[in-house]
Amino acid sequence: MSDVSRTADAIDDVRGRIRRAVETVRDTTPMAQSFTNFVTINLVANAQLAAGGTAAMSFLPDDVIDTAAMSGADYVNVGTLLPFYKDALPKIARAFRKSGHKWVLDPVAAGIGATRTEILRAFRAAPPTVVRGNASEIIALASMWGLFSPDAATRPAGVESVDEVDSSVGPAKLLARFLAASAPQGEAAVAVSGAVDLVTDGHAVYRLPGGSAMMSKITGAGCSLGGVTATYLAVADPLTAALAATALYNRAGEAAEAVSHGPGSFQVAFLDALWNTTADEVAASEILID
Amino acid sequence: MSDVSRTADAIDDVRGRIRRAVETVRDTTPMAQSFTNFVTINLVANAQLAAGGTAAMSFLPDDVIDTAAMSGADYVNVGTLLPFYKDALPKIARAFRKSGHKWVLDPVAAGIGATRTEILRAFRAAPPTVVRGNASEIIALASMWGLFSPDAATRPAGVESVDEVDSSVGPAKLLARFLAASAPQGEAAVAVSGAVDLVTDGHAVYRLPGGSAMMSKITGAGCSLGGVTATYLAVADPLTAALAATALYNRAGEAAEAVSHGPGSFQVAFLDALWNTTADEVAASEILID
Amino acid sequence: MSDVSRTADAIDDVRGRIRRAVETVRDTTPMAQSFTNFVTINLVANAQLAAGGTAAMSFLPDDVIDTAAMSGADYVNVGTLLPFYKDALPKIARAFRKSGHKWVLDPVAAGIGATRTEILRAFRAAPPTVVRGNASEIIALASMWGLFSPDAATRPAGVESVDEVDSSVGPAKLLARFLAASAPQGEAAVAVSGAVDLVTDGHAVYRLPGGSAMMSKITGAGCSLGGVTATYLAVADPLTAALAATALYNRAGEAAEAVSHGPGSFQVAFLDALWNTTADEVAASEILID
Repeated sequence: MSDVSRTADAIDDVRGRIRRAVETVRDTTPMAQSFTNFVTINLVANAQLAAGGTAAMSFLPDDVIDTAAMSGADYVNVGTLLPFYKDALPKIARAFRKSGHKWVLDPVAAGIGATRTEILRAFRAAPPTVVRGNASEIIALASMWGLFSPDAATRPAGVESVDEVDSSVGPAKLLARFLAASAPQGEAAVAVSGAVDLVTDGHAVYRLPGGSAMMSKITGAGCSLGGVTATYLAVADPLTAALAATALYNRAGEAAEAVSHGPGSFQVAFLDALWNTTADEVAASEILID
Repeated sequence: MSDVSRTADAIDDVRGRIRRAVETVRDTTPMAQSFTNFVTINLVANAQLAAGGTAAMSFLPDDVIDTAAMSGADYVNVGTLLPFYKDALPKIARAFRKSGHKWVLDPVAAGIGATRTEILRAFRAAPPTVVRGNASEIIALASMWGLFSPDAATRPAGVESVDEVDSSVGPAKLLARFLAASAPQGEAAVAVSGAVDLVTDGHAVYRLPGGSAMMSKITGAGCSLGGVTATYLAVADPLTAALAATALYNRAGEAAEAVSHGPGSFQVAFLDALWNTTADEVAASEILID
Repeated sequence: MSDVSRTADAIDDVRGRIRRAVETVRDTTPMAQSFTNFVTINLVANAQLAAGGTAAMSFLPDDVIDTAAMSGADYVNVGTLLPFYKDALPKIARAFRKSGHKWVLDPVAAGIGATRTEILRAFRAAPPTVVRGNASEIIALASMWGLFSPDAATRPAGVESVDEVDSSVGPAKLLARFLAASAPQGEAAVAVSGAVDLVTDGHAVYRLPGGSAMMSKITGAGCSLGGVTATYLAVADPLTAALAATALYNRAGEAAEAVSHGPGSFQVAFLDALWNTTADEVAASEILID
């Protein structure tokens, strides 16, 4: 069997799993709970609903842990921190680890602020199932956890990365392997958002082109992608969840750009497109394997 | 006078009071203050403005109590709790009771989380004027306050309720009577949201059909209905406020569904419809009395 | 040179500076950080993005101070206070003063609540570069800081002000002069929102007519105007920033009113118009100098 046909088979398998994840969410309306920032909390919930799931948002450990028992997966975003999060978030992560509960971490602004750094460091001992962020955040988190030293990069020093996402391939793979080794199910994924999105389970690296430049002109495209990844994680393995959410977002972004006249109408059309994009359209997305 | 004509007279009277509440809000732009969750706080404010009122949101007891002196009624929603709410919310409820200030409670997620349970239990000693929730929340609150024992339900054990709302009729009436007995004005109401909404003052039970299934595909339809109920409560008695808000929501939901293409455009059209639905249209809503 | 032509020259100069501010923001996407209320935090961020900037929102002092080092200006809004703000906000203001960081204060609800009063009083020792509010808030802040005594008003007692904004001319000028005296750059501005908006640097008083009555039917028109003022302040002097933001808002409000059918579609069209209004259109706004 040639490498080309093996890759074709692998992509067909991936497409099948993406289609089933999108359909299963719409058929079963799974609940994914979020502990997320105040800026985009409304969009996270509305995007999860538009993708077919249900949403619950909580901040108190007793509330989060009670609700997690009813939710298929959780989403944690470290934007807009409050003082009590320093104790609450590590406590919540430990509870998730103890119960084997799956969760998605969005390490927003990793590297900025002593409190955020303390919280993100604490998650190393009770890690998430999926991490979603931009290239800088993924590199910062992998570095913070000692998985990657910026000095010991696989790329030769002095060579500029083609783009930000490319510069995170190594750290993203190392991060995904670390998460998988800690995961009760032995599976994990890392998703890096950028001009061409990247998803890896620590071994294969998938690239998903497309989307819309307008997604950076509304607040919360990244956060709500993390939330929808948790919605899919409630019904699918981590790699499939990250791929399905990323592909849905790219298709919905393109559909919204085609009918909108600025960032206001783009957000409205984007939520409509999350609702209307079919599982077949998501599964037919261009997917490149490195 | 026959039962049928007596019922017809009662409904005519109710319609007149609903029409006046809708008109009075639009003529006088009353202020209703909210202590509500972070997910839907923006929609609560925008819905109150779209219905014709004005909005103010606060969390610190000194701020809430100062602002309540200028507001016609308050709305309290126990979603997304923070640690200081455990002391702040009972303190605020006691201040409202002392000054005879009217307020609407939305017991979101009643029964989940030790802190929420502690807060909701504390409200028994300083109860709201109106409670609005889904059937499970109304049953949980009535049970938590010892007004209703799930074992002593009026329906025979083993008989499934026709729908969730039906299962809450008994608890909702008991709750409304308890609230009325504590209310300075001796009047109270409970509103249960569902496929067919239910409103009771503890004696008569009103059912309001209609609305749109899309209302469960945006976050905050229930919360913002609670907020708009507080807006009407600023100018009307509790029963009228609950009926007017529920009827307005059903008409606006239908209007929005007719012109929208998904949850994004539905929310936009829904806010437009709250603004454009006439007092006559709200008052002409189908209302069934048990 | 006649007074008329001198005024014409002054206005031409102002128009040139407004045009450059609008263009520079679109060309350089400056970051402005916000510490703002939970009701309209999403709209503040989306308005800053639609005007061409980027947004970051933070509440913990260590996070705010770290992020301020990367942001061109900050926006602080004292709505929806939490307990820890009482210490955090004065600490943040002192850090801004120490580093000479420019910021916009929105004294929402000035005069209501003991905690808010304590925070606003503390800002006197570490004042902002721009204050934006409605007439009552400007008068309350100037009075709180001892710059203006309501009893010693320049207008004779018993004479009702023509409109709210007019009643704030004196306090607004005194406030702007106080801010300028404290500013590292020696420049400051005060913007008063109303039917006809007023902007002053403590000497000249500019009046900007226009906008839409629908802006008071969505929540956050004022807050997001404050946020966009911070976006312009990142690239321009305080007076130009306040004029550019106010003029953009008036033009966008008019454009949105022309194509919308209620507050839901108004907000969507307003964000689109912030994105689509040209620098020339903003600069061509009617501007009256007292």
